[in-house]
Amino acid sequence: MPQSWLLAYDGFHPEEEGLRESLCTLGNGYIATRGAGPEAEAGDVHYPGTYLAGGYNRLKTDIAGRVVENEDLVNLPNWLSFTFRIDGDTWFHLGAVEILSYRQELNLKQGVLTRTIHFRDKQGRRTKVSSRRFVHMKERHLCGLETSLTAENWSGNLEVLSGLDGRVVNAGVARYRQLSSKHLEWIKAASFDGDSLLLQVRTNQSHLEISQAARLRVLAGGKTLNVERHTVEEPGFIAQKLSVELAPGQAVTFEKIVSIFTSKDRATSESGLEAHDVIQRSRGFDQLLQGHVLAWKHLWHRCSIEVDDGERTALVLRLHIFHLLQTVSFHAIDLDVGVPARGWHGEAYRGHVFWDELFIFPFLNLRIPELTRSLLLYRYRRLGEARAAAKAAGFRGAMFPWQSGSNGREESQRVHLNPRSGRWVPDNTYLQRHVNAAIAYNIWQYYQVTNDLEFMYFFGAEMILEIARFWASVTVYNPEVDRYEIHNVMGPDEYHDAYPDAREPGLRNNAYTNIMAVWVLCRALDVLETLPEERREELRTMLALEREEIELWEEISRKMRLVFFHDGVLSQFEGYENLEELDWDAYRAKYGAVQRLDRLLEAEGDSPNRYKVSKQADVLMLFYLFSAEELGELFERLRYPFPYETIPKNVNYYLERTTHGSSLSGVVNSWVLARSDRPRSWRLFTQALEGDIKDSQHGTTAEGIHLGAMSGTVDLIQRGYTGIEARGDVLRFNPSLPAQLKRLRMSLRYRQQWLEVEVTQERLKVSNFTHGGNPVRIGFREDVLELQSGGSREFRL
Amino acid sequence: MPQSWLLAYDGFHPEEEGLRESLCTLGNGYIATRGAGPEAEAGDVHYPGTYLAGGYNRLKTDIAGRVVENEDLVNLPNWLSFTFRIDGDTWFHLGAVEILSYRQELNLKQGVLTRTIHFRDKQGRRTKVSSRRFVHMKERHLCGLETSLTAENWSGNLEVLSGLDGRVVNAGVARYRQLSSKHLEWIKAASFDGDSLLLQVRTNQSHLEISQAARLRVLAGGKTLNVERHTVEEPGFIAQKLSVELAPGQAVTFEKIVSIFTSKDRATSESGLEAHDVIQRSRGFDQLLQGHVLAWKHLWHRCSIEVDDGERTALVLRLHIFHLLQTVSFHAIDLDVGVPARGWHGEAYRGHVFWDELFIFPFLNLRIPELTRSLLLYRYRRLGEARAAAKAAGFRGAMFPWQSGSNGREESQRVHLNPRSGRWVPDNTYLQRHVNAAIAYNIWQYYQVTNDLEFMYFFGAEMILEIARFWASVTVYNPEVDRYEIHNVMGPDEYHDAYPDAREPGLRNNAYTNIMAVWVLCRALDVLETLPEERREELRTMLALEREEIELWEEISRKMRLVFFHDGVLSQFEGYENLEELDWDAYRAKYGAVQRLDRLLEAEGDSPNRYKVSKQADVLMLFYLFSAEELGELFERLRYPFPYETIPKNVNYYLERTTHGSSLSGVVNSWVLARSDRPRSWRLFTQALEGDIKDSQHGTTAEGIHLGAMSGTVDLIQRGYTGIEARGDVLRFNPSLPAQLKRLRMSLRYRQQWLEVEVTQERLKVSNFTHGGNPVRIGFREDVLELQSGGSREFRL
Repeated sequence: MPQSWLLAYDGFHPEEEGLRESLCTLGNGYIATRGAGPEAEAGDVHYPGTYLAGGYNRLKTDIAGRVVENEDLVNLPNWLSFTFRIDGDTWFHLGAVEILSYRQELNLKQGVLTRTIHFRDKQGRRTKVSSRRFVHMKERHLCGLETSLTAENWSGNLEVLSGLDGRVVNAGVARYRQLSSKHLEWIKAASFDGDSLLLQVRTNQSHLEISQAARLRVLAGGKTLNVERHTVEEPGFIAQKLSVELAPGQAVTFEKIVSIFTSKDRATSESGLEAHDVIQRSRGFDQLLQGHVLAWKHLWHRCSIEVDDGERTALVLRLHIFHLLQTVSFHAIDLDVGVPARGWHGEAYRGHVFWDELFIFPFLNLRIPELTRSLLLYRYRRLGEARAAAKAAGFRGAMFPWQSGSNGREESQRVHLNPRSGRWVPDNTYLQRHVNAAIAYNIWQYYQVTNDLEFMYFFGAEMILEIARFWASVTVYNPEVDRYEIHNVMGPDEYHDAYPDAREPGLRNNAYTNIMAVWVLCRALDVLETLPEERREELRTMLALEREEIELWEEISRKMRLVFFHDGVLSQFEGYENLEELDWDAYRAKYGAVQRLDRLLEAEGDSPNRYKVSKQADVLMLFYLFSAEELGELFERLRYPFPYETIPKNVNYYLERTTHGSSLSGVVNSWVLARSDRPRSWRLFTQALEGDIKDSQHGTTAEGIHLGAMSGTVDLIQRGYTGIEARGDVLRFNPSLPAQLKRLRMSLRYRQQWLEVEVTQERLKVSNFTHGGNPVRIGFREDVLELQSGGSREFRL
Repeated sequence: MPQSWLLAYDGFHPEEEGLRESLCTLGNGYIATRGAGPEAEAGDVHYPGTYLAGGYNRLKTDIAGRVVENEDLVNLPNWLSFTFRIDGDTWFHLGAVEILSYRQELNLKQGVLTRTIHFRDKQGRRTKVSSRRFVHMKERHLCGLETSLTAENWSGNLEVLSGLDGRVVNAGVARYRQLSSKHLEWIKAASFDGDSLLLQVRTNQSHLEISQAARLRVLAGGKTLNVERHTVEEPGFIAQKLSVELAPGQAVTFEKIVSIFTSKDRATSESGLEAHDVIQRSRGFDQLLQGHVLAWKHLWHRCSIEVDDGERTALVLRLHIFHLLQTVSFHAIDLDVGVPARGWHGEAYRGHVFWDELFIFPFLNLRIPELTRSLLLYRYRRLGEARAAAKAAGFRGAMFPWQSGSNGREESQRVHLNPRSGRWVPDNTYLQRHVNAAIAYNIWQYYQVTNDLEFMYFFGAEMILEIARFWASVTVYNPEVDRYEIHNVMGPDEYHDAYPDAREPGLRNNAYTNIMAVWVLCRALDVLETLPEERREELRTMLALEREEIELWEEISRKMRLVFFHDGVLSQFEGYENLEELDWDAYRAKYGAVQRLDRLLEAEGDSPNRYKVSKQADVLMLFYLFSAEELGELFERLRYPFPYETIPKNVNYYLERTTHGSSLSGVVNSWVLARSDRPRSWRLFTQALEGDIKDSQHGTTAEGIHLGAMSGTVDLIQRGYTGIEARGDVLRFNPSLPAQLKRLRMSLRYRQQWLEVEVTQERLKVSNFTHGGNPVRIGFREDVLELQSGGSREFRL
């Protein structure tokens, strides 16, 4: 196995376990597994086994505004519960033995995590423990853990305790620990068939039932051992205790196959019954693993991006693709799940869904569009809630929330803790209305790539129209300048939620928001134009969409206001030019890292609202989302000049004033430099690439990986450096590889055709591997040509 | 409103209430409402308000084989619970008053049921009660009941009791009453906001939670009255009691808006919370009704079939389309529901899913393909269960069950009651393996109509391959005739489940089954040919599909055995020719109706297995499903002759020997005569049309409408008499209207184009109303031509 397929760690370092766990998380769809140590207690790290986006944020605050109760991300019962002891000693504990060697290895190609521990205990007994585990990528309800124990220099009684543990709590994020942490109520536990257990729990707020069944087999020398078992039961916990006599050099293997069902699962009757039946007819570890490895092989065939730049880039890209594919897996197609910002890898943000799809869909659209479609339906199902939110706020149409959970209502916290000052500070991030533009953008991109007219017809058009209506309704006319304006919002840059010393939060005319609103209104007009007559009429009457309203959309889309500095740089928002410049040197000298300048300033009694500083890309997002051509068209529509210098000028201005406090920022910044400054772009790319694997934000990865940034780095390779743009009926290419990237190769699915793309410094080759179907149109710089099935075209760069 | 949009009944006839209720059921997706009388107690009819396909058939039989416990179709709590009394008298009861007039009216155009009762009580008080109700076709969680009461000649205190009743039982089918009937456990009840109630229950086997919230408003003279309310609570029941003083001529209106959620609903947190929130922000009755009526308007625009033959046919066709659209409604797109044989209209067959899609999809494919897609996904989700079933039976691939419920396992009863003899008789209908061919057929038809390659790619192909594999694995080679055979099955004709006096059930070489198996194998070979390379390889490795197996499919598809009589008529199964002819005259003389000859014979100690009689179409299904051209190709492939006389010969032979004990049979028989004997076909069509509305089977409609037959009659008009066939890339037409049908007009959606079809005795006109998109290819007799968007073509017949 080449090193670029293995994420391997040697040595046991308790302080690193949180990070390692997050990076080695295995999962699919709604289940993901973490489990510290050798599936036994490991130092101080006590993560539960699995996660599930469950409940509903029943967030309550006390008089002081402190959060006292909340339920969202729910830990599944820990199915990894497995420990052992020798001759009745204390149960195995990593901290209590002398570790001779310790290695953990995540095989990205196969989706298997192995861990090997060689230790000597206080009695001088040397034991080897090795375990393998997987969460099945095809049979979505199954996972497996195989643990082998070898008595190296001792003989005696090996006692094993293997269970299902529903006593798990949410304790993964230190600053949330004052929130309520226990979400599971015990329903029942039982043992069956001699070798199997069943545990059933219910989430206490959302009443979701979760059932797990586990079958344990004991093998030695390739044969199954019939071992007597005792059931150990406590409220919320059930386990089997069994023991085996070992002689020096002898090994024994424990094979634990677990099924997981919830009451939300489709095609089920009752979760306990299903978990029971599935485990009864499940095959053994090796057979299941075989199917799992095959599923991963197929996934990689579809999703691999091969780069020639040494192993590190290849490894990290694979790690990112790996986590992306198991967070929003094929299984998610039939689940009602969104894209949680931190994957299912940790408890940060409590599983909430933000706008990260914007960074994640471009990869999926071009490979597994059926999955993107399903994720868009997740939003469609919450359209009613978004309509209710718009209405409650006095707007029309649909207003999707900045953060959301199970039922799609706004879940953004209203206060957050600054760990530096210990203060709970008002949180106005719910004003990031731009998430609505991101949703419309995602629908449109999906449609461009797939030409899925049925989706647009039945779902997409309605969402775009309702979002457009929302934007039109938040817009106000300013007669002084004969322009439309948007007030009281926040852009993506979370350092600015209000004007300095203002009583009310919100900013006026955020450039990103205003341009996105215009773009959405244009797409809504396109939708009305291209929808079949009968559906257009249905939607017009159903939504009571009058001619005047549509005319207003047209007008706003031509007269939205943008604010510029005198030299033509876009003002992040109206009034930005009046803010103070920050004394960067002084702050760097004082604090070192200034990524979370907001916390530093707040602790000083100051606020980033006063300064020309950004936590993350805001104006620059525009150059990330739109090609210069498309942006030029938008400016022309608005009758604003768009000289050639606009992009580099804005990039230079804002890059100098950004602290990169968000993981997404690095991706955007690298992207916007991809044309103008390839070496710098590559440097930013490699920094972004290392974000999680090196935990650049010092501790945040242990709370869950940054899925948007992971996907964004992959997309930088996929689209950023290849200049791929799906617009109209053409898939355009315009590659420009950084010097460090000698060659890249990948497969894409575009409008039901399977394309292979190969790019080097000198040439671009696009081949169509499909049999039959309509040819696709590909563009290279100014040229557009048809690529028939079976055809291939090569271009010199 | 023209009469052809109104199903109206005058007069109160307690003995008819069951039938009327079934025909007047309102619903959508998983909720359907029935409710006898004026939403008060009505005679002896006590149907619950709503149904839901819930649980899992936990069917248990005692030693005598009698069913003692079962859970499947679950009644939702009755939200229609509403009654009243005057001056403290007994609560209103239809049987206890003198009815002056009584009218109930189902408005098919708007989906509204109204009921007007004018009565005089024992005290001589005359009162008028009128109610309207709907189950919302757009806002799927809402329904509304408005009741107006007018004191005609009295003054006094009108007391009303309006509640949510979770004490409902399954009692709709007399012969099931010895089964367990109570499926709901009470969780909680509460009142809130002064005017609203919440009831929450859980199904006792599947643990599904169901929550309802109801808001009651009182209006008089167009104004809301603030009336004091008292909460009445019993386990499983909560209601509000309130009273109003009325003077002669005064009227008061009660507006009850109800929300329903279950724990399976998507985009929800906890069902009680959602029901509560939705009712809190819900609009009033009239506003909701407006949106509901608009949704129906859009549905009719899509789904109307206009016929010129007097109002009766038009009315009944509309009734059938109406029930089809509310049973498998737009809402079902996001639910995991199949097509229950009896709609959600009654408890017969306990909500089970059989093969009725075969008769239902042709209508939906050509109008709401997104819905058919979703119904096919219902099957796809149960593919794992079908694989397990095949494995357990010693076969390969996927074996879908004859009857299924929530989790897709076999739910066919193993004994059934003959009410005539009182005996529980073994039931071998699970041997109807042909349901698997129907599923493959449905996938293929959907694909032909929509060209939805993505569906085939991700879901359809896998199902077809697994079903083909199943057919190949049940096939056995007979070296004597060098042919492949299928043993131990039943065809659609349920009169034959075994050879006379055989110990084991099952028949050999059922013609329908064998030909369908061949057809499925051919489509599987097509699928392998047309799938993109990368997906074919994925499926081949995932399913471990070897070259030898595919070669075997090819071979079986050329060498399947069919058995013929000496005169070329297809034998329904091998050995059918040895059965006795029934003395039809004797049986008709003895019993009158012989539709359920099986019950008559069993009661006599005899069995239909001994006779050349059919309950329903079996061989004739072939002429229903395939055009002569396609069938000819299949026979040619099998190297059997297929002379021109084959079809009429078989039709004549089997029509003479069929009792039409199944509602589907009339449709098939009318269809197979549509070309050769139009007058007789039309007669059979009109008989089939009247099946439910006249309750031709004497009592079965009250147990639930026959959805397949309803849809089948519509499809007779749609495809049967127009000769529409979607095959390859061509939509073929070959109209041949019966004399009684002067003109028909309908809209179709074919490959994303919107077509309008008009047929008279003399001409066919097809117009394409779409803007843009690819032209579609239409065929008329031998010609094939392209129809551009905006284009129109006319053909003389």
